[in-house]
Amino acid sequence: MLIKAEKLKAIFAPRSVAVVGATARPQSLGRAVFANLLYAGYGGCAYPVNPGVKSVLGVRAYGSILDIPDDVDLAVIVVPAAAVCDTLEEAGRKGCRGSIVISAGFKEMGGEGVELECRLQEVARRHGIAVVGPNCFGVINTDPAVSLNATFSRSFPAAGRIAFVSQSGALGVAALEHAAQEKIGFSKFISIGNKADINENHVLAALADDEATDVILLYLEDLEDPKEFIDLARKVSEKKPILAVKSGRTKEGAKAAASHTGALAGSDETYDLLFTQCGVLRVETLEELFRLGMAFTHRPLPRGKRLAIVTNAGGPGIMATDAAVRHGLELARLDPATEARMRPHMSPAASLGNPVDLVGDADEARYREALAAVLGDDGVDEVIVIVVPQMNTDLGAMSRVIADAAGGTDKPLFAVYMATGDIERPLRLLDEAGILHYRFPEDAARALGAMAHYVRWRKRPHAGLRLFDDVRPDVVREILAGAAREGRKFLPEPEAHAVLGAYGLPVSRSRFVRDWSEAAAAAREIGFPVVLKIVSPDIVHKVDVGGVRLGLNSEEEVRSAYAELTAQVAAAQPDARIWGVFVQEMVGRGKETILGMKRDPHFGPLLMFGLGGIYVEVFRDVIFRLAPIRELDARNMIRGIRGAKLLKGFRGEPPSDMDAIADALLRLSQLVTDFAEIEEMDINPLIVLPEGHGARVVDARILIRK
Amino acid sequence: MLIKAEKLKAIFAPRSVAVVGATARPQSLGRAVFANLLYAGYGGCAYPVNPGVKSVLGVRAYGSILDIPDDVDLAVIVVPAAAVCDTLEEAGRKGCRGSIVISAGFKEMGGEGVELECRLQEVARRHGIAVVGPNCFGVINTDPAVSLNATFSRSFPAAGRIAFVSQSGALGVAALEHAAQEKIGFSKFISIGNKADINENHVLAALADDEATDVILLYLEDLEDPKEFIDLARKVSEKKPILAVKSGRTKEGAKAAASHTGALAGSDETYDLLFTQCGVLRVETLEELFRLGMAFTHRPLPRGKRLAIVTNAGGPGIMATDAAVRHGLELARLDPATEARMRPHMSPAASLGNPVDLVGDADEARYREALAAVLGDDGVDEVIVIVVPQMNTDLGAMSRVIADAAGGTDKPLFAVYMATGDIERPLRLLDEAGILHYRFPEDAARALGAMAHYVRWRKRPHAGLRLFDDVRPDVVREILAGAAREGRKFLPEPEAHAVLGAYGLPVSRSRFVRDWSEAAAAAREIGFPVVLKIVSPDIVHKVDVGGVRLGLNSEEEVRSAYAELTAQVAAAQPDARIWGVFVQEMVGRGKETILGMKRDPHFGPLLMFGLGGIYVEVFRDVIFRLAPIRELDARNMIRGIRGAKLLKGFRGEPPSDMDAIADALLRLSQLVTDFAEIEEMDINPLIVLPEGHGARVVDARILIRK
Repeated sequence: MLIKAEKLKAIFAPRSVAVVGATARPQSLGRAVFANLLYAGYGGCAYPVNPGVKSVLGVRAYGSILDIPDDVDLAVIVVPAAAVCDTLEEAGRKGCRGSIVISAGFKEMGGEGVELECRLQEVARRHGIAVVGPNCFGVINTDPAVSLNATFSRSFPAAGRIAFVSQSGALGVAALEHAAQEKIGFSKFISIGNKADINENHVLAALADDEATDVILLYLEDLEDPKEFIDLARKVSEKKPILAVKSGRTKEGAKAAASHTGALAGSDETYDLLFTQCGVLRVETLEELFRLGMAFTHRPLPRGKRLAIVTNAGGPGIMATDAAVRHGLELARLDPATEARMRPHMSPAASLGNPVDLVGDADEARYREALAAVLGDDGVDEVIVIVVPQMNTDLGAMSRVIADAAGGTDKPLFAVYMATGDIERPLRLLDEAGILHYRFPEDAARALGAMAHYVRWRKRPHAGLRLFDDVRPDVVREILAGAAREGRKFLPEPEAHAVLGAYGLPVSRSRFVRDWSEAAAAAREIGFPVVLKIVSPDIVHKVDVGGVRLGLNSEEEVRSAYAELTAQVAAAQPDARIWGVFVQEMVGRGKETILGMKRDPHFGPLLMFGLGGIYVEVFRDVIFRLAPIRELDARNMIRGIRGAKLLKGFRGEPPSDMDAIADALLRLSQLVTDFAEIEEMDINPLIVLPEGHGARVVDARILIRK
Repeated sequence: MLIKAEKLKAIFAPRSVAVVGATARPQSLGRAVFANLLYAGYGGCAYPVNPGVKSVLGVRAYGSILDIPDDVDLAVIVVPAAAVCDTLEEAGRKGCRGSIVISAGFKEMGGEGVELECRLQEVARRHGIAVVGPNCFGVINTDPAVSLNATFSRSFPAAGRIAFVSQSGALGVAALEHAAQEKIGFSKFISIGNKADINENHVLAALADDEATDVILLYLEDLEDPKEFIDLARKVSEKKPILAVKSGRTKEGAKAAASHTGALAGSDETYDLLFTQCGVLRVETLEELFRLGMAFTHRPLPRGKRLAIVTNAGGPGIMATDAAVRHGLELARLDPATEARMRPHMSPAASLGNPVDLVGDADEARYREALAAVLGDDGVDEVIVIVVPQMNTDLGAMSRVIADAAGGTDKPLFAVYMATGDIERPLRLLDEAGILHYRFPEDAARALGAMAHYVRWRKRPHAGLRLFDDVRPDVVREILAGAAREGRKFLPEPEAHAVLGAYGLPVSRSRFVRDWSEAAAAAREIGFPVVLKIVSPDIVHKVDVGGVRLGLNSEEEVRSAYAELTAQVAAAQPDARIWGVFVQEMVGRGKETILGMKRDPHFGPLLMFGLGGIYVEVFRDVIFRLAPIRELDARNMIRGIRGAKLLKGFRGEPPSDMDAIADALLRLSQLVTDFAEIEEMDINPLIVLPEGHGARVVDARILIRK
């Protein structure tokens, strides 16, 4: 992982590049790539490789990469798919550290292409070359000392603080063109294509400490290794924001994604969880990705979410307010001193609350006073200044005033010029001063809202992953091994309770018995009332076969219930192997909750929490997290269900023991992380008693991998 | 209403216009307005009115509107606020039918401004002049025969099929400039300002049968008459789509709105209901408003929601799919014949399912075949064609192919060119062919989704407003009058039940009694078991004072319960006037639901439906509609709650009598529409019995206006 990230750095900043397949033939990829490399002012040595020609675009060409009389760091390969592996073989022998395979015709084609990609991986591994692609659009580094354009893009982006990683080559093309038009600058661009070798995780690791990059934008269709991504992204997000478009959001989209890259995509809700848990901001559209990406290059980031709006028109002020609240900001309460400071300079019609409406005839001098006042207010974290040009608006002067105000503060000050006519010069003045500007107030509010959200995420309590040391993995291991030996997929209740008990989950008092006299003795020991449940490796739904008796109050009742129970089950399912009966304490009144786990083949264990019964069945009032979870995740799961009120003590009831739920969730998380054999489990119900009295696992089902 | 709408038409197409306050002074509003009128090529006669000058911009000026030797249809007023009323007086005497008051300084200023606006209304009423404004930006009509620009805009929009109505002048300015840049054409534009006279309803009525307008865009900060708006918009939406931005969405935004226009805004959720009920599509941002507005000018509208996507790159295809599903479209299942028709023309790598991915090297000939095939497929309602320019893409030729394809079909065909470089000419070709194009696939999908939604709304079953004729308004009137006479705000239960019973709601069997022997007799008559409830005009919460006894099974029990009940209430609330006791049948087991009504001062009665108890209190699982509702509304309310499953017969329970709920909702709607004195009511619970057995009102509270 780290080795590849290191090699990737060499790909981003090679001292010498060979373009294999370079040619001067018009309209060819080989020409486009070599021309881009040459004309972008690359700082190292560029060598065209093409056995048929003497030179390409004026540069001496070589018949093979092996003929180049110099070290070659990076081999860019633009030859037909069938020739790629041999070329990469030569690059390996030449000692290249990295390669970008632009050629298509691999996994994305299916059939032979898949085999070809396997061969390519084998060659890369053997020579220790880091390979970007195949089927990719290439790599760009705008660092003036490097100035690498190893793509077939028609435009070379301006230098900037954004790194953009695209799984789709076509979207990469479109994105670069869009960015050029919107004057968005990049630090680095990489199209990872089929991800035969280098994937998004390597790129993230390489960009984490890239000093030229302040924000990372991802366009993804799937994740190569979701678990690694979570760990990595969580760490990288602490340093710099990550924004992502993950397409294939809908089932239909995912189907299209699968046929496109041959990737097996996980379910989309799971991606939402994953991004949330590691602080990645997921957005819906490319336009939004770039707009927000630009905003996130603003430094420093805002301290909080208290927004002030300065405008010369009421309507846009209202729209900004609506959008701000929608995106999680709040309107700052201005200090009375702030208003007093503005008042002498303002028209009597001006409304100096927040939004500060300077009214239509406000000139730049009034804006100057208003901006100084709100930026100086300690209760303000960020400012949107809106200008609707009117008769006496001088937008050039306005830009200078805004630039001055921004120069004297470290709070974000975003501008909205609601005009599109002859405003190039005023906008250029803002650009030069590094001030972000928007055409509509909603966009500015959206951007600041996302920034404030990120800052809040970064400030969250950082609970490390807490591991319980009072657990007995040896006990669990033995039970699972036993079941595996017998080829069972389902753990009967005594085993399930033993597994949960071994990890400290609050199982109810119980004993597994084999006849009625043992049952009576167990009941006496446990204390009345008790419950009897049939135990059989063949019966998953006990109630359906009459395999449960509740509320038995004496040894007498236990004995006769035992006889009835076994007889009834034998009648209902004659071929079931009956192991015996589970005698269990009858848990007092509490709230029924459900804890569950399902292992996703792609993402690992998904934990679920909810209220039991109709709340889960009708209202689907449940919440998911990917394991392993932290203390804060567990608390957020409990708080996050809609019915959380019912646990807090509704209508004079005592509050439920939420600590006990959190403890159970964390122990469950540790259990399913430790044992990959556990495929699926339901603790239904976990009865939660009033505060201080804990909770009890009443019924548990565990399915294991055969 | 209709008279004003007629007069408004005169404002949009006047034969002659006087601009009072016209001047040649640079940088003045009076110059801007008169210059716009003159230079837009107005088809009628324009007269400047200014007592100080001989001519304005070369046109003979008059000292007063009364001096103009000709009829004047429209007076545009740009004089200081203090002089506006006298000017309007003269316009009235001159016989003008309409006036546009651009001058500010009225209601929006508070204080004297409010009085000035009242005077202005009085003058307008007296002379029967329709007045647009004051404090507005003016009116535009792009009809070449009229070519009216009565605004101070810096740009005159192109002619088009969109009418735009803006409550905010400043946003109007910004909108016109944005539209000019995006090449969006308008049929009419009107800034309604303070709405002293002409409001959005008059404008809607006028635009409903405006042949130049296909789609109406509204920017609103409040509604002048919400009930009238609902009726009107419902009718207009049948003819042409209405899209609206209603700002002041959040509480903070509404506060800003209130301080801006002095308007009293209703709660925002209520606006959502209102727009939904009358088919108006509410959007969040101006950018979205115009983007969707343009799409809606496409004729004919799509027949359904089955989308086909044709692309030369997988990523954008996936993004389009995601966005389409998000916005309510579905991917069409292509006929096998469609694929067979395409196959011979395609590269073997092409993936001909939907999205149809022609892969990167597709030229315009392949697009031609693919478009012909999918547009010819009967299972396709609309098509998005995506082009990511590659080496051998000729975008000009591509535009011609798309134009040809669009020419041969009546299905919407929207184009996405994911490129921004040198594509002006190809885009102009699309523009000329009337083909809508977008930079990102999400925008095309969003637009088609909104169009399909509108078409679906228009196709909904059109139940008229059904009125029950078995109701007894006379009974209700008498009860309400009695309560009013006695100055009571709250109807005790016998009265509440009588009111509901008079409108045919299924009240439970009951009798109001005054002593224990009457109670026993009533119980016998009703049938056991029964319930006793205290009846007092001073007690709203009966249970809290021990005023309810349930499940009484004999005359014996009724007698003793009567004595206990009255004694306990007297002890708990000694000063309460006790009228007697309500003897009521004990309703069998059913589902508890709640029906309610709260009258909004701005919108009228809001009806509520939900499941009772914890579902309403914890899960807030309720749904609202503005009364009066139709049959379909009632059904949608019942289906719309999250817990609807519980009514359909969950876990082997019999389904509940949903017809009875719908009937109760419709009768409630009629009751609260007929009696504006009813302020608030709770039917909690309405117990719903199994299908065929109806429902019973068990407890009802009615508050009336004092």
